[in-house]
Amino acid sequence: MVKESAKDLRELLRLPPGEPVVLAGHDARATPGAPGGKRAGRADSARLGKRLANLQERLWAAATAGDRRRVLLVLQGMDTSGKGGTVKHVIGHLNPSGCRIQAFKAPTEEERQHDFLWRVRRALPRPGEIGIFDRSHYEDVLIARVRHLARPAEIGSRYGLINDFERSLAEDGVTVIKCFLHVSYDEQRRRLLRRLDRPEKHWKFDPGDIDERTLWPAYQEAYELALERCAAPYAPWFLVPADRKWYRNWAISRLLLEHLREIDPHYPKGDFDVAECRERLLKG
Amino acid sequence: MVKESAKDLRELLRLPPGEPVVLAGHDARATPGAPGGKRAGRADSARLGKRLANLQERLWAAATAGDRRRVLLVLQGMDTSGKGGTVKHVIGHLNPSGCRIQAFKAPTEEERQHDFLWRVRRALPRPGEIGIFDRSHYEDVLIARVRHLARPAEIGSRYGLINDFERSLAEDGVTVIKCFLHVSYDEQRRRLLRRLDRPEKHWKFDPGDIDERTLWPAYQEAYELALERCAAPYAPWFLVPADRKWYRNWAISRLLLEHLREIDPHYPKGDFDVAECRERLLKG
Repeated sequence: MVKESAKDLRELLRLPPGEPVVLAGHDARATPGAPGGKRAGRADSARLGKRLANLQERLWAAATAGDRRRVLLVLQGMDTSGKGGTVKHVIGHLNPSGCRIQAFKAPTEEERQHDFLWRVRRALPRPGEIGIFDRSHYEDVLIARVRHLARPAEIGSRYGLINDFERSLAEDGVTVIKCFLHVSYDEQRRRLLRRLDRPEKHWKFDPGDIDERTLWPAYQEAYELALERCAAPYAPWFLVPADRKWYRNWAISRLLLEHLREIDPHYPKGDFDVAECRERLLKG
Repeated sequence: MVKESAKDLRELLRLPPGEPVVLAGHDARATPGAPGGKRAGRADSARLGKRLANLQERLWAAATAGDRRRVLLVLQGMDTSGKGGTVKHVIGHLNPSGCRIQAFKAPTEEERQHDFLWRVRRALPRPGEIGIFDRSHYEDVLIARVRHLARPAEIGSRYGLINDFERSLAEDGVTVIKCFLHVSYDEQRRRLLRRLDRPEKHWKFDPGDIDERTLWPAYQEAYELALERCAAPYAPWFLVPADRKWYRNWAISRLLLEHLREIDPHYPKGDFDVAECRERLLKG
């Protein structure tokens, strides 16, 4: 048992529900559970990708026979932490037909007319799908808190609403996997500088991102609160060290795989007479 | 000029607008324009995949600076012709963030309350995206015709409505690429038999598909009409021989690439002072 759980990346990265989170105490360059360095990590990610694609097909197939289970991967993290890169490199291994990807930006006029979970409910994965949120309802307790986009009491009430919402998802067959991509202040600087160095990356660069860095401590604090208050057994938060891209990709692939293995979806049995179908086909 | 156009797969596969289409005259096992056999085709598909991903990123980047152009790939074909396989193997090379995939099934109650293009409009790609339709509004002149799901006069009016609709898309910056995956009657039998042989494929098998084969001639006729009436310069139909899966994947990759090269999207220039941004970053 001990040996098994030591192999389970979920155990290594899961934030314990209800315990204070101190981000400064987590090394963003760490590689917990990795099968080795960069080369070994990448090779293992490719292997994991194939296994993920196989399990995804089973999940999808099971849904055609009425299985309502599905997965929701929530990606949160500071600018440059690699949310988009995760979609490209991890989700890129899956069959795009079975993925429902939603990037959440500043709410539109229409979205503002509704409660903050409205747009999130509309983007949820359907049975058999793997949903991916690039940012999410957590922005409503992150940037909303740091930039004072709502009254403190309202923001304060959102943690409980989020917990209720995520519990209802879990009860409806959604495996919720929330990943905080933990990037360091210095690594963010390096990544922003690299974008500046390469003209073909300029479209990803917003000078406003530099101003946002002055709010770094406030964001870290807002994340600490969100991670502490919304780490639940039915919807855990995983802290993924993200200064090393290969590790981030490997860890999220591995987390997805462990969850899918636990779901253990099966190809449904056909409810038809194979021999009779074969005969009819051969006649026609 | 002659040499160039001979290399353009669009020229080889495009159905000439307004000309009668006789599907029986097209060999579903043909491999027009292919770089060789299966091995060479697969190797070239992998290369094309990388180039597609690169152009897709440019298309996406251009949209962040206001470029409204996008692509809509429409996949139509009989059961087992490989619409799903195309999404998996061709679209699988792209960044899933920039793809909007919609599979159209029998219309829901809500969809039935609206005109037949309603659900299609809602699923269109946004600027910078590559949209993929697995089946489409063409079902409303295919199965609707074969199965008499609407009055003949109404179905008759839909071809013109489709042409108007697709013209308006083209005028709005949508590159419409319509592929008919041409599979033969015998190859369909082989593929259905293969599904029966493998229990893990049974979920894809519907005994109703065998009954549907008795309507094969009616479907071919409905396709011939649709291809003839809706092959337009602004939204061409490509007939893709689909009995060989490697060729189907190669041809659709190649068609997508040729269209994207013609769009020729560019990374937008940043409208910020790089030196000043760098200085601010290094200070903070």
